[in-house]
Parts: sequence; structure tokens; C-alpha cells
Amino acid sequence: MSEYITHDRSGRSVGRVEKKYFTFAEPPNEMALDSGRRLGPITIAYETMGRLNADKSNVVLVLHALTGDSHVAGHYSETDDKPGWWDNMVGPGKGIDTDKYFVVCSNVLGGCMGSTGPASTHPATGAPYGLSFPMVTIGDMVRAQKALLDYLGIKRILSMTGGSMGGMQVLQWCIQYPEMVLSAIPLATTMRHSALAIAFNEVARQAIIADPNWNNGDYYDGPRPNVGLSVARMIGHVTYLSDDALRQKFGRRLQDRDNFSFNFDSDFQVESYLRHQGAKFVERFDANSFLYITKAADYFDLTQQSGQSSAVDVFLKASARFLVISFTSDWLYPTYQSRDMVKAMKKRGLDVSFCEIEAEWGHDAFLLPNERLANLIKGFIDSVYERME
Amino acid sequence: MSEYITHDRSGRSVGRVEKKYFTFAEPPNEMALDSGRRLGPITIAYETMGRLNADKSNVVLVLHALTGDSHVAGHYSETDDKPGWWDNMVGPGKGIDTDKYFVVCSNVLGGCMGSTGPASTHPATGAPYGLSFPMVTIGDMVRAQKALLDYLGIKRILSMTGGSMGGMQVLQWCIQYPEMVLSAIPLATTMRHSALAIAFNEVARQAIIADPNWNNGDYYDGPRPNVGLSVARMIGHVTYLSDDALRQKFGRRLQDRDNFSFNFDSDFQVESYLRHQGAKFVERFDANSFLYITKAADYFDLTQQSGQSSAVDVFLKASARFLVISFTSDWLYPTYQSRDMVKAMKKRGLDVSFCEIEAEWGHDAFLLPNERLANLIKGFIDSVYERME
Repeated sequence: MSEYITHDRSGRSVGRVEKKYFTFAEPPNEMALDSGRRLGPITIAYETMGRLNADKSNVVLVLHALTGDSHVAGHYSETDDKPGWWDNMVGPGKGIDTDKYFVVCSNVLGGCMGSTGPASTHPATGAPYGLSFPMVTIGDMVRAQKALLDYLGIKRILSMTGGSMGGMQVLQWCIQYPEMVLSAIPLATTMRHSALAIAFNEVARQAIIADPNWNNGDYYDGPRPNVGLSVARMIGHVTYLSDDALRQKFGRRLQDRDNFSFNFDSDFQVESYLRHQGAKFVERFDANSFLYITKAADYFDLTQQSGQSSAVDVFLKASARFLVISFTSDWLYPTYQSRDMVKAMKKRGLDVSFCEIEAEWGHDAFLLPNERLANLIKGFIDSVYERME
Repeated sequence: MSEYITHDRSGRSVGRVEKKYFTFAEPPNEMALDSGRRLGPITIAYETMGRLNADKSNVVLVLHALTGDSHVAGHYSETDDKPGWWDNMVGPGKGIDTDKYFVVCSNVLGGCMGSTGPASTHPATGAPYGLSFPMVTIGDMVRAQKALLDYLGIKRILSMTGGSMGGMQVLQWCIQYPEMVLSAIPLATTMRHSALAIAFNEVARQAIIADPNWNNGDYYDGPRPNVGLSVARMIGHVTYLSDDALRQKFGRRLQDRDNFSFNFDSDFQVESYLRHQGAKFVERFDANSFLYITKAADYFDLTQQSGQSSAVDVFLKASARFLVISFTSDWLYPTYQSRDMVKAMKKRGLDVSFCEIEAEWGHDAFLLPNERLANLIKGFIDSVYERME
């Protein structure tokens, strides 16, 4: 089913990954969204790694965070020098071992990396959707992914994992399609987006909306709201790190100088780092997608959407085995939010393990190479797989 | 010397405060700045409360934070319904008791509340300075304040206090004019602006600079960079609160609705709060001043400017008695930064007390009514005063 892979354990390139597309919900069979609106056709970009076994029992679904994409690991070609976003975790012999497991990763609905989103062409007008794109939720993203898995003929998912907004999708899967999910590993995430997280997202959105080039979302044939999107990304980057991480990575070190500039140039390395991150981001990301996806995260609240009165009842329908992981220095989705999740799972009698990993790098820690994280994920998925066999 | 005051203990209005101006550094006697440039004339707006005693030994200097001003407490008139920014602390019988002490508060150099700043008229051109205004440092701010105190005939300061950037000025005073400072109360502050604090300031500055109306600082005769300044303020507001504070104050409560809007309106109360704070701020603050003052804070590093190789030697020249106060939920200037300060003071054999106040409201806690804070400050100033007599 998929091209094989990336690098083997010695680092030798042994194959390639390929971005593929699945289109469904062709009118008049549009997908019904949580907002009550309908959307179609929908294309989902996805990539797979490893080999699907005969009984399709070795599927691991990886869910990306806010600005991620389907390119989870490996390279597109021998000359492609930038691997996917979680290459340290996914590959032959790695934490998610593509020698054993069939990994599926798709770009979220509303995204701009191949899946249908606000930059896609509105079939009725022939022009990009812009703000006429309907608001999507984490539930809608999962619904679209489910259609992809149906198409791939996958009925049960051995394990699924993702950090941050990827973790929200993991949790959503477990209550939306509980019969399909054998095990789940939510990383650095939450059952409900906090006021702090909403606040940062809202400021980032306002930075985009403040850019005159944003033009109420209608900018695809003109200059792009790059300055606004760049500021939005800078805000994000500060929240992904931590006080400690920033101190260790940059401290008060100056940029290319021994003295202060006494003007508004970048004096400090942390300033040029942020400006660089902002500038890089606008080359690969669509401002409207940023607005839609952050809003989907802000809307995320398992308590509310489960129609249950208390957090305890959220996991009423879930049956997966869980490994919940948080990181000590993550102040965007702090450990107490993972503990709340674990408490609710335990009250429902679910099989749940919890681990808080000592990490200095803030919320970003889930993306960085971490032997402990890789071992925990590997051990957990292997044990679920062995128990199943 | 000053008009008397505000409200007495029963809340009755018993007088008024008045904004006054002191101008100095008239050319050719401009003030030399840390950048090497010269600036003059300089006007400093200031207010006083209480009565200066005969031997001028009852002076308490209050230093404001980033967006504060000289209007520390009291009302300008009987119909003025908005008291100064620290009215809960400063007044008759309050933590800083204007029945006993003569309180002086001035607007910082570079500000926009009456003191000379980038919005002031450049004497050479007759137009506002804009970006031709020289960069100022915390040291320059203190230098200008010193000129004001000289003018007022004040040679010794019984006590001085301020939070955040006000606290930086307090520390700066203690090493720049150590012979004048009997005691000092730095609140929620730091010896050196951290990478995290610089990062947030830089993102806020970039939001202003991204606004086309900013026009390289030259906007005084046209539309103002209000959208950029508003986003900058929103960023600030998130950092002044805390995860806990935002959860308690707003949680995920919706604004005027039972359901999500499924558009980009304010769904959550925290969103409208931030938008409101941004909109209010642009009415009273100058965008260029925001740029200059945040940069001054970013440059602040007592270790570096003291020319000493280690933090321990920072307070080599200081002789004040210190009360250092931090707040548990302040993640912009966390307690460890106050502890570092206290450690350095102790190593120099200074008389220093330290208190970490349990407070839920993040960095903003120093501004909010807090009986413990008021009692600590009152007790400390009284004891210094009594010891002196």
C-alpha cells in the first residue's frame, strides 16, 4: 500500500515517502460539520510509512499539531534534506517502529498542506474559499480522518498518538469512534483548551486580522498578510518554549555585536530567533488556516461536547488503553491538565498509565528527541500489540 | 509644597492632587544619555502627595511600571472618578501613608504622560521627535528623576518602591545614587530582563512596527498605529495574568451567547476582555513610547552595567536597607529572580528582607489590593523612619 520508507537504523536511505490524496464528500454527499454547515468535496493529504500487515492490525495513527502536516517522517527523495516533523520518533527501529507498524499521518481538515482548507478552491465560485470556508472543529477533523481510514480499509487502530492539538484529536477519536481505537497516547495536551491558551491564540489571530493585507481573508490574488502571520507565529514560539528554555538557549546574548544598538534592530539573539521563525513560517503557512485551526483548538472541550455534566463522564464511551504524557516545563498545557484527564479516565475504570517527563524545553518538548519519550511510546505500543496477538 | 490629597480613611474626599512639570537640561546643558547621545530640554511630569517635613526626611519615591504615569493615587478634582494607578496603596492611613510621608511619583523619561518622550516636540525641528528621539535606559530615567529631586531640594529618600519596571528603577537608584537611598522595596522585578521577557516585548514591538500606520514612527499628523499598539497591549495583558488567574477570571465562559459563533467574533469572555484592553489602551498611550520603554526594560541588566563580573558584585556600592517582594503566580518575573537578587544583596552584607506573597493574579498582583503587601510595605517604611529619628 505504501512506498517504503526513509532511513534504516544505520542512517542509510532505504526508500521514500510520498504525499497522497484522498477525496470524498463529493456533492451532494457533503460532510456534515459540527457547526451545522456542510462541506464537500473534501481532500485529505496523507502519508504512510511501513507495511500494513495482512489482518490490518498494525496501524499507528499519528496526529499533527497546529502547524504540522502529513509529512511525519522520512524524505520525499534522495535529494530532500529535510525530513518530516517527527523523524526522531517515527522510522525503522525508532519509538514508533516502521519495521513493525504501519504509520498513517494526514493533514487536518482546514489546513493548508494538501487537505481542504480556506485556501482551497470553492467549487461553487472557482475562487479560494477565504472566510466563506466553514468553521471546523476537532470533531470535524477526526470525522474526515475516519473517512480516510475507511477508504484505506482500516477498521481498528492499534495505537494513535499526537501532541498538543494532535493530542486533542487523539482524545476526540477515543470518544467519537471508541470501537476503532485500541490504544491512545495523548501528549502535552488537554481535555479543554484553557483561558490562557485561548488568550494567546486570540492575540495571534488579532495580529493577522490587524494586517491590512489580510483583507477580511480575501488575499489570495494579492499581497499576503505576512507581517501579521509572522507576529502570530512569534507569539506561538514564545509559548512553545519556557522561561528556562529561553534562558538556556539565548539568555541575554547579543546578536553579532558587543554592544547595544540603541535602535530597534535585533539586539538580542532571542529577538532575531523570533523574527527568523516568523519570516520562515509565512513561506509555508496560510494565514486563514492559522485562524481556522486555532479556533478549532479554542473550541475544543471534551466535557462540553460529550454532553456530560462532569469531566468524569467524558470517557463514558471510551475503551482504549491510554498512556498520558506531560512535560514538566510545558506551561501551555501544564501537567495538571493531564492529571485531570487521567483522573477522569481512572474514574471510568479505563486502563491508563501516566508519566510526567522532566524536560526543560517547554511545550515543544514533545517534538524534540527524547529517549525516555521514545522508550515509553515504544514499550506501550509493543505491549498493546503483543496483548492483541 | 503640595496640594493635599485624596480620600481620608472614611473615603471622604479631602483634597486633590495636581500634575506638575519640571524642565531642565536646557541646551547647551543637555543631559548625557547612556547611549552617548545628549537630550534637552527635558520635562518631567510629577505629582506629590502628603507634606514634606521640615528636615525633608519623609520622602517616599514611587516608580511606575511600563504604562503607568505620575498619577499614583488620588483624584485630580471632585468630579474625577478615576483615581491614580496605586490608589489602594498610597493615601492617608494606607500602606504608604500620606499622613506621614511625602510621596513623589514622576512619569519616566521616554514616556507619554507629560514627560519628554518620542511624541514631544523636537526643539530643532518643531515637529515630534518620533524615531529621532534617542534611546533611553533605566539609568537615564533615574538620572532625570534625580534632577527632579535636586530641584525639589531632596537629598535623601526615606524609601522608594515600584513593581516590574518600577522595581528596575528602584534597583538602579540604589547603585547609581546609593548615598541618597535609605531603603528600597523592589516588587515583582528582576536584576536583569530575562529572555522570556525580552521575547514578549519584542513580539509586542513587532506588532506595532507591522502596522502600516506606524510609518517608521512618523504618524503624529496622520492615522495612528492603533491596531498594532492594541495587539501589543493584548500580548502584555496575557503575560500580566497567569494560567490560574485567567481560569478563575474567565475560564471558558462565553460572551453573550449560549453557543459558539462559528466565526471570528469574540466567542469567549477572555477574548473580549483582551480586545477591550487593547482598545482602551490606544486612547491613552503613544506607540513610540511603548517601543522606547520596552527597549529600556530589555536593556536592563544590573550585572552588566555595574561593570562587575558577577551578580554578587552588583550591589557593591549599594547601602540601602531592602525589602524584596515577589508573587507566587508571577511568571514574567518569577520568584527565583527575586531570590537571586536577595542572594546578591546578602553576599554584600546588606540588610535585606525577602517575602514571596501567595497570590493568584500573576505579575499584576503587585498592583492589586493586598492587605499583606500593604502591611509589609507599611511596616518596613515605618521601621526605617523610626530608626532614622
